[in-house]
This record gives sequence, structure tokens and C-alpha cells, in this order.
Amino acid sequence: MKREDVEKIRKRAAAVMEEAGIVIRPEEAAGIEVSDFGLGDILSVGLQVVVYVNTGEYCAKDIILFPRQICPEHRHPPVDDRNRGKQETFRCRWGEVYLYVPGDPEVRPKAVIPEAYLKDFTVGREIVLRPGDQYTLAPNTLHWFQAGDEGAVLSEFSSTSTDENDIWTDARLRRLPEID
Amino acid sequence: MKREDVEKIRKRAAAVMEEAGIVIRPEEAAGIEVSDFGLGDILSVGLQVVVYVNTGEYCAKDIILFPRQICPEHRHPPVDDRNRGKQETFRCRWGEVYLYVPGDPEVRPKAVIPEAYLKDFTVGREIVLRPGDQYTLAPNTLHWFQAGDEGAVLSEFSSTSTDENDIWTDARLRRLPEID
Repeated sequence: MKREDVEKIRKRAAAVMEEAGIVIRPEEAAGIEVSDFGLGDILSVGLQVVVYVNTGEYCAKDIILFPRQICPEHRHPPVDDRNRGKQETFRCRWGEVYLYVPGDPEVRPKAVIPEAYLKDFTVGREIVLRPGDQYTLAPNTLHWFQAGDEGAVLSEFSSTSTDENDIWTDARLRRLPEID
Repeated sequence: MKREDVEKIRKRAAAVMEEAGIVIRPEEAAGIEVSDFGLGDILSVGLQVVVYVNTGEYCAKDIILFPRQICPEHRHPPVDDRNRGKQETFRCRWGEVYLYVPGDPEVRPKAVIPEAYLKDFTVGREIVLRPGDQYTLAPNTLHWFQAGDEGAVLSEFSSTSTDENDIWTDARLRRLPEID
């Protein structure tokens, strides 16, 4: 992504946090992680993340999603003896999130995937997260999620985060360095 | 504490969360952890806690403090080979918190300790946390904190929490079963 586009997305993400009533410091707003996963279609498939802390033991982030924005399907595999794969808890703070995991697929899912991306979404058990709702994923569980029509803020509490180890169903995807 | 007093404190704590704009579910509000540490003086020395998740790897809570309420001095010692003592990150969400750790003591601290409790507060390096500010404590670091005049909500992100292992400077203190 171009620097000016990243800056625009960061400003918009900071505005969502403000609307959600979650205070971040100016330097946190200026450093919001922006990822289009290399697809160049960030309003459909992308993420904005404020990482509060990520130590060798635990991690806490807020994920900001624009309306209907999708975090594509992936899993967090075992990394080494100390890291058996990230375990994570998603807690909805604002808006609405549709989370999908392995299991009986929802017949009428609330999520809407643009047709071009459909083949890389394979799990369909639906968990609807509204403010105050949360769900904990075991390590190495395939999952993806989409915000509802208003967008969302989703807290992620987890063991250590090592994004570079994530495995994406769409093998093209990566958490690229965000600026060209 | 008597059940009716615990219920009153829970209601008041839930109202603080609402004022802070942080959504918790009704069952979470009904289960807020309330502790007077056995002193019977909860509005001076006490804690209200919503535990979102506490796994073998990570933990996330929100601590609700009434105006000038104190969490007394303690540390999280090593527990076993897997738990080298809880490492924790405090992030202020609402209100103001005065956190104290080892180091040069503040000459004019913002915290005010009732005289009867003074002898059990030994560390005095002051860290002022306002919304968006955070501070990470190494395991086994002595610390205590007090809310400002409006009260506060403080997020705690950490490795696994095992409250029963905490060591309090005032040896009388404990996280008692809350209801007589």
C-alpha cells in the first residue's frame, strides 16, 4: 500500500476507536497496523490493529474493522517448544462480528464474501459476537471473521503473537510490510 | 463480606463500567469479583474485577476502582517451572490511576493512604496512568495503586493469574472467599 493510503486508513480506524469510546494515545493512532494482505482491496479484505502489548507470554490487541471488512481464513500453528500455536480470545467491544470456525456450517450465514474470494473460505460454523460477547479459539484452529454493517472493534487476548507464522488458506496472502 | 454488601458493590461497579462505556454481559456483572482483602473497609482498600479470560497461558481482566480505592501492595512470585510469576500490563481505560513500584519515591505523591494502613506500603516510584496510558511490570515486582477522585477502570493483560500465590506486604491480607 502507498503511504498516503495507509495514513487515510489509519485516520479512519482511529475515528472508529473514538466512536467506540476506546482511548488510544496519538502515537498509537499514528502506528495502527494496516494490512491488505497483499490483495490491494483493503475495504473488502483487510485489518487495522492496535497492539497494546506482545511479550514472550501474552498479547493484547484491538482489531478495528470497517463495515463488512473481512479478516481472511487462517490458523496459528505450533512454532516451537515454547509456543504451541497462538491461543486467542476474541471479545467484541463495539459493532458486530461474524466469526467462523470448523463445525456444522451455517446455512444462512450473516457474512457475505465477495465471489472472487469464496474458494479460500472453508470453515463455516458461525459465532455471532455482539458487544460483551467473546469466544476462545484453541491453537491451530482455522478461522476467519467479518464485521457487520457498522464495522466493529474486537479485542484479542492471546498467548504470544508471531504473525509471520500464520498460515493462510489463500496461499497468496501475507502480512506484508504495509508501505510501498 | 455479607452477600447484600457484595451485591451493592457489584451494582456500583457495573455502573462504573457503564459510565466508562465498556460493555459487560449481565452474567458478567452478576459475577464481578469483589474483595475487601479481609479488612472490612472496601471503599478504602478493595478491588472489583471482571475476569474475561484466564488460561494456562494468558489472562485479561478489567479492574474497577471507586474514587480513591486502593489495591494494596503485593507481588506475584514464581509459582513453578511453567509460571515464573505473573507478568502484567496495566492500561488505564477511564479515570486516573496512581501506580507505585520500586524506585525513587515521589516526594509529593498523588495517592493518599489512610494512616492506619501506611506501614504496609513500601514502594513509592509513581506512575500516573490516564486513559490510553499503560505500564508493564516484571514478575515479582512489588506494586500497589490507587484510583483518583473519579475512580477508574484499569485493564490488566498478563500471563496466567493465580491470585492464591500473591504475596501481600500486609500479611493479614488475602483474596478471601467474598461472601460470609
